Amino acid sequence: MKFGGTSMAGTERIRRVAQIVRKQQAAGHEVAVVVSAMAGETDRLVNFCREANPLFDPAEYDVVVASGEQVTSGLLALTLQAMGCQARSWLGWQLPVHTEGAHAKARVVDIESHALIEAMQAGEIAVIPGFQGLASDNRITTLGRGGSDTSAVAIAAAVGADRCDIYTDVDGVYTTDPRIVARARKLKYVTYEEMLELASVGAKVLQTRSVSLAMKEGVRVQVLSSFIDDDAPPADDLPGTMIVSDEEMEKSDMERQLVTGIAHDKNEARVVLTRVPDRPGAVAHIFSPLAQASINVDMIIQNVGREKGETDVTFTVPQADLARTQALLEAKREEIGFNRIITDAKVAKISVVGVGMRSHAGVAATMFKALADRGINIQAISTSEIKVSVLIDEDETELAVRVLHTAYGLDADGVAA
Amino acid sequence: MKFGGTSMAGTERIRRVAQIVRKQQAAGHEVAVVVSAMAGETDRLVNFCREANPLFDPAEYDVVVASGEQVTSGLLALTLQAMGCQARSWLGWQLPVHTEGAHAKARVVDIESHALIEAMQAGEIAVIPGFQGLASDNRITTLGRGGSDTSAVAIAAAVGADRCDIYTDVDGVYTTDPRIVARARKLKYVTYEEMLELASVGAKVLQTRSVSLAMKEGVRVQVLSSFIDDDAPPADDLPGTMIVSDEEMEKSDMERQLVTGIAHDKNEARVVLTRVPDRPGAVAHIFSPLAQASINVDMIIQNVGREKGETDVTFTVPQADLARTQALLEAKREEIGFNRIITDAKVAKISVVGVGMRSHAGVAATMFKALADRGINIQAISTSEIKVSVLIDEDETELAVRVLHTAYGLDADGVAA
Repeated sequence: MKFGGTSMAGTERIRRVAQIVRKQQAAGHEVAVVVSAMAGETDRLVNFCREANPLFDPAEYDVVVASGEQVTSGLLALTLQAMGCQARSWLGWQLPVHTEGAHAKARVVDIESHALIEAMQAGEIAVIPGFQGLASDNRITTLGRGGSDTSAVAIAAAVGADRCDIYTDVDGVYTTDPRIVARARKLKYVTYEEMLELASVGAKVLQTRSVSLAMKEGVRVQVLSSFIDDDAPPADDLPGTMIVSDEEMEKSDMERQLVTGIAHDKNEARVVLTRVPDRPGAVAHIFSPLAQASINVDMIIQNVGREKGETDVTFTVPQADLARTQALLEAKREEIGFNRIITDAKVAKISVVGVGMRSHAGVAATMFKALADRGINIQAISTSEIKVSVLIDEDETELAVRVLHTAYGLDADGVAA
Repeated sequence: MKFGGTSMAGTERIRRVAQIVRKQQAAGHEVAVVVSAMAGETDRLVNFCREANPLFDPAEYDVVVASGEQVTSGLLALTLQAMGCQARSWLGWQLPVHTEGAHAKARVVDIESHALIEAMQAGEIAVIPGFQGLASDNRITTLGRGGSDTSAVAIAAAVGADRCDIYTDVDGVYTTDPRIVARARKLKYVTYEEMLELASVGAKVLQTRSVSLAMKEGVRVQVLSSFIDDDAPPADDLPGTMIVSDEEMEKSDMERQLVTGIAHDKNEARVVLTRVPDRPGAVAHIFSPLAQASINVDMIIQNVGREKGETDVTFTVPQADLARTQALLEAKREEIGFNRIITDAKVAKISVVGVGMRSHAGVAATMFKALADRGINIQAISTSEIKVSVLIDEDETELAVRVLHTAYGLDADGVAA
């Protein structure tokens, strides 16, 4: 079980978390709990580091920020004890959670779980601070912001857990953003790959890295809310969304939809380079400098230009990197040989995601027709095995999401659209 | 060097501390720094523990409260790095600082200092969180409130330091409380034993345990202020008070005073049991139950009673334990066989302290005469090798301290009394 910062914000909320944990133990489960720092605490500690040293040493930064989870792990153990449970905290260096790679963004390589499993089998609830580990030189590491999700999946894999329940402030993964579409439905199951596509294009429920790790390790992850009514769901029901493998999904009785969900992302910006020479290697001249600058290019479309031997190249980058992208390309203008740079930050990427489309044609055609029927202009298209994405005017985001949600038959019954 | 919570309260003050540390290094010293948590932080963490579980498990309490010093040690290392110094934090479990005894009040038994000394010799400033250690079962311990002074002395002993400088919000140890006597003088030297007597009777500058440890390990401790003017004292001067052994004191050129200081303590309460049977074992009946209840009895005086075969017994206990003391004695009334319990919380203990009195008679007589001359009534007397204490009416505390300060020739010249 993993609880985020909002769930751990103060002793009153920690008591609520302890009740949820105790209920799972009472239902017969052996339980390990991974906790985040209190909401706002990590920001407070990061600010201290910035004030102390703007170019901070990541090793000392890790010493400072790892303290937030240390505090909540001790407090949750104390709270569970007050409820009559056996519980103890296991800090990252105590297990230890071995990590490698740079401080402040380390990767888990191995977790020594022998003592942990023994304690859990003896009926003790293990409370583990998320986000933290131990480097080979015996110093504290952290996994990067949001790393507690990854900690939880790694612990689940290490102890061979039946399930990794990630408690958040939403009660599951939806077919689309419920703030846009009132008739969005909560998914009971979603595959790792669908979750990765949904997460990376805007359904920010879980840290992407934790989903990749769950897929690699075969950990069944459930996303659910820690703010549910205490009496409503019995402990063994699955009140949230289960993230599972393709195989488990196929074995499940669920009637599969062609499309699982619609995601949107307003953080992209479009860049067009006009009249680029249409010759081998021209595109490499554009994207090599961006890659070197760690700018993440997403959609790429090459249009045939009006003039023979020339082409227009369109692509998207994160809005935050747009200015840097322009500067880099201007510096390479002669080498690339383009005419103009046209940029537009007022765009949105709308994605239709579903493993079902692997075996069905016509998913993209449905998308294009539905959007065209409402007069929504498509600026760029990209596809993967389980996703079709289009770039549109940002103002039309909500309209496009609603239109597609209906077009793929995702609307819940009995809820006003 | 050790810095308390007031000195570490916020990144601005930590920068001030870093400047003081850098100055010592620039003067040619190898430096290790022991730090407290930011002022108020330990209280905040203790409150969290109390809210989580009023009967908290001291092992988890230690996990929570040790985080305060972890944060400041990382921040001081970062701040020193920002000033161009090499620095790193060494947490209690990293050195490790081996401890034994109960959680939340553990005792340091051994510090592995090899890596620490190597790093210091290589020019790296070692920053060590105070108050924390490691139990033999690999769990975090803390040394009890104020334990950072003890950590500092223990580290100083482990690395064979020339000096242990304890920076506080006062600039040294005075002949008496300067708020009472304007002509109080700062002592340049004081012996461990004098410091113990001065500390335990009210001059609360250092944790008593840290002074005992310094005496046992022969660590030269200096008490000085972290709020001194940056330009005033050169780094190698001793702007504070040095706490040293008898031998060093004798070797020093200082002209020894008969009396080193006057302490006062308003936290005692007086208890009188009247008409206690004057027979063997009677006194044991009084004090055994108090000892079992961990009530610290200080002065004890047995007066000859007016009736033959009876005696009055007077003693003092901490005011906080007075109600419990009364209840315990009432429960044993028959066994002890006293007539009445008379209590008085409006008393003060005034102590005259000095190693010089070992070899000089008349110190007590001077005290009694000086107090009698001003009409101050003595309710009880107790003496040790280097201390004479009297119990008086609390309202006369300030008068008594001033009278004695003058009587023993401690007044500074040129300052209005």
